[in-house]
Amino acid sequence: MSYLVIRNVSVLIVPESGDCRVDEGQDIHIEDDQITAITATGVTPSAAAQADDGAAAPEAASEVIDGTGLIAVPGLVNSHTHSPMVMMRGAAEDLSIDDWFNQRIWPMEVNLTPERVRVGARLACAEMLLAGVTTFVDHYFHADQIAEAALESGIRADLAPTFFSSTGPEAIEAAIATARDLPTLGPRITSSLGPHATYTVSDEDLRRTADIARAEGFRIHLHAAETEDQTQSSLDRLGVTPMQVLERTGVLDAGALIAHGCGIRDPDLPILERYADRTTVASCPKVYLKLAMGTVTPIKGLQSIGLQVGIGTDGAAVHNTLDVWESLRMVALTQKQREQDAEWMNVSDTLRLATRGGAAAAGLADQVGALEPGRQADLALVDLSGPHCQPVHDARAALVYSVRSSDVVTVLVAGQVVVRDRQLTTMNLDEVLADAKDLAHTLVDLSKGGAVQHYAP
Amino acid sequence: MSYLVIRNVSVLIVPESGDCRVDEGQDIHIEDDQITAITATGVTPSAAAQADDGAAAPEAASEVIDGTGLIAVPGLVNSHTHSPMVMMRGAAEDLSIDDWFNQRIWPMEVNLTPERVRVGARLACAEMLLAGVTTFVDHYFHADQIAEAALESGIRADLAPTFFSSTGPEAIEAAIATARDLPTLGPRITSSLGPHATYTVSDEDLRRTADIARAEGFRIHLHAAETEDQTQSSLDRLGVTPMQVLERTGVLDAGALIAHGCGIRDPDLPILERYADRTTVASCPKVYLKLAMGTVTPIKGLQSIGLQVGIGTDGAAVHNTLDVWESLRMVALTQKQREQDAEWMNVSDTLRLATRGGAAAAGLADQVGALEPGRQADLALVDLSGPHCQPVHDARAALVYSVRSSDVVTVLVAGQVVVRDRQLTTMNLDEVLADAKDLAHTLVDLSKGGAVQHYAP
Repeated sequence: MSYLVIRNVSVLIVPESGDCRVDEGQDIHIEDDQITAITATGVTPSAAAQADDGAAAPEAASEVIDGTGLIAVPGLVNSHTHSPMVMMRGAAEDLSIDDWFNQRIWPMEVNLTPERVRVGARLACAEMLLAGVTTFVDHYFHADQIAEAALESGIRADLAPTFFSSTGPEAIEAAIATARDLPTLGPRITSSLGPHATYTVSDEDLRRTADIARAEGFRIHLHAAETEDQTQSSLDRLGVTPMQVLERTGVLDAGALIAHGCGIRDPDLPILERYADRTTVASCPKVYLKLAMGTVTPIKGLQSIGLQVGIGTDGAAVHNTLDVWESLRMVALTQKQREQDAEWMNVSDTLRLATRGGAAAAGLADQVGALEPGRQADLALVDLSGPHCQPVHDARAALVYSVRSSDVVTVLVAGQVVVRDRQLTTMNLDEVLADAKDLAHTLVDLSKGGAVQHYAP
Repeated sequence: MSYLVIRNVSVLIVPESGDCRVDEGQDIHIEDDQITAITATGVTPSAAAQADDGAAAPEAASEVIDGTGLIAVPGLVNSHTHSPMVMMRGAAEDLSIDDWFNQRIWPMEVNLTPERVRVGARLACAEMLLAGVTTFVDHYFHADQIAEAALESGIRADLAPTFFSSTGPEAIEAAIATARDLPTLGPRITSSLGPHATYTVSDEDLRRTADIARAEGFRIHLHAAETEDQTQSSLDRLGVTPMQVLERTGVLDAGALIAHGCGIRDPDLPILERYADRTTVASCPKVYLKLAMGTVTPIKGLQSIGLQVGIGTDGAAVHNTLDVWESLRMVALTQKQREQDAEWMNVSDTLRLATRGGAAAAGLADQVGALEPGRQADLALVDLSGPHCQPVHDARAALVYSVRSSDVVTVLVAGQVVVRDRQLTTMNLDEVLADAKDLAHTLVDLSKGGAVQHYAP
């Protein structure tokens, strides 16, 4: 058993509802992969905690990390991304959503190989861990390679192997087989089924996916109602909204993580409400503004029917970073704008979405997303001493509106120190960057022609 | 004469129109406060440059800064801020615009003293310089104290001493006298006249301000048409828009920097067009979203009539940072959203607003805002080697959508190295932070009652 103590740290407490608070002068006690107690500095874990799991006295700690002057926050969750797309960062700028897909991204993705995906995923894991992201929820090709990168880096991941209907039943079968294999590759890896979207996967394939998901206990992670235009197009073509497609194919019944959902309309809410216990939505607003999608995820409506909402970056080919601090700030700002209410999406609610909401999106609602005894020790120690954060009248506001990823000092995932003093402990960053630079040109090469798919939702 | 060379650096060239480009492998030659030549690395400045100003050979450089692996960008301009409000960072969160002004900010400002303003301004200058902001355009009280902080830090500043009509003619006279004195305090300080807004300064006082501005060569920096509501209220109360107020009082004729202008309507454009050569607008979109103002600056319309637009942070009591990288990213994103056009406000145009646009807003259009021989040597060396920027398919996109202020390595203002290896050379940051922390509580104390003004535009 390893026993680690983070000594004399401020702790961000994110309750299930209501205001977050910051407890100063705390010790976080971590045994193996779990938080076992949070006590006032220097106080032995409570008798209750000792009775539960035999927590040792602080003196017995095999490692003590000095948290003085730092704030411990639950590790952030990137609730929706395509991590290897970091390899295309900056290669598709200032384009309409149609051109972004059809002139750049889907033609580029004919260049995907297992090696290139792995190199991209390693870079993505490095970027996320250094920024305090301890879990990511991914949707991409060659997901086994992404799992290997996640395992090497020490990050936690839920991975959905992507498939389209257009590539035929064998490719779908292979993606589902990969989803079955992923959790066997090592710890901290879970998987979901990954049909691409309601507009690229047929109802028949969605139905079969839902059947497998229900039978084998998978959740389904997919794109749906990404834009209002997609919803209107679905109504025009099929007479139903994307949410109705998800219901009639059994996807909602199986349990779904819906990426974006900006085109979810008020009449969809009663449908979603029936599956509120197993439906989450990931919001990635930087992308909605950058692609001029016209609207953002209707979080207020979704929360009103009991859905959990997480925050994601989407892929870096459009978001340019995998920075969840940036994303959560964008959520706060764009939700206030959407609702025309500056009091809405306050700092506590924003932090809750990025942590507890993300945990739900990852299918890990009881395991991560809060700093509490019994949960996994996934956390980041953040330094608010920089001139862009000082003076600190409200640490929660500093975390939402001032902090930068470069303020993350130390990161733990499942009790393992994966970032120490702003350096990765698990990977050689120079090597990760050099590999990515070497291969970057191969991903954006459009000389071969073709595309993995055509965007015409 | 001092002669400094930045050796082997990539240079961001921001033309007056069209695409920005990055020239690799360049030497930037700096004599005293000016750029005298930009040459291929190792090449002696051109005969032309030598003939112009007697540039010495590189061997004679008194200092050589190695720019290998870095990109030199024109120092960013914060086109509208209230720098000492960093002291209130995080003290007025999740509030409507009315409550933000009337319950927090204007009651807090009864606590302003010269010392508190100076301590805040020192912190603000530190934050901005470390983030590559080399010029700021300020609007606040006790502007002489802000000038002293700017002088100490080495930053460039245009300062407008704020006044309301409600505080009487003597206070106005004092503010104008301060504006007259500021440039005498030292180099790199210019001043503007600072009536607060069209809704807090009477037409009569605006008219008198415009007369003085025209007579003495000042520009006028003020808030106008901050929101659509203000424009509607002006029409309801006065029968004219805020832009019409600015015209009829002579403010536009004198030359104005208009903060925000989100409520500028299409019929205002022909009015503004008559003064396009001397009118600039500063856009601070993080604030418009955070206060749920309902709209953002109509930059497309303003540019269509030839106005220059700069990017600002506004005060940190609402923007939380003075980070112009963050602001320029928000401009790109919110302008795409506003125009429902992902091709609009492309990376080159965004970078131009933050540099040349800001220079115009500061009244320094010919002196800063671009890396060109003959201009002031105000620049930042930025490191794009971090995992959040790599691989770099397009450095311009990295600067707009990936970079963080912490990627700024070295900063020069007027040829002086003010940040070296991410450390201020001009001030002791620990001392600056300690002073700010000591006094922060005095600024947010509401026990005295009263307010400097009431928001009822």
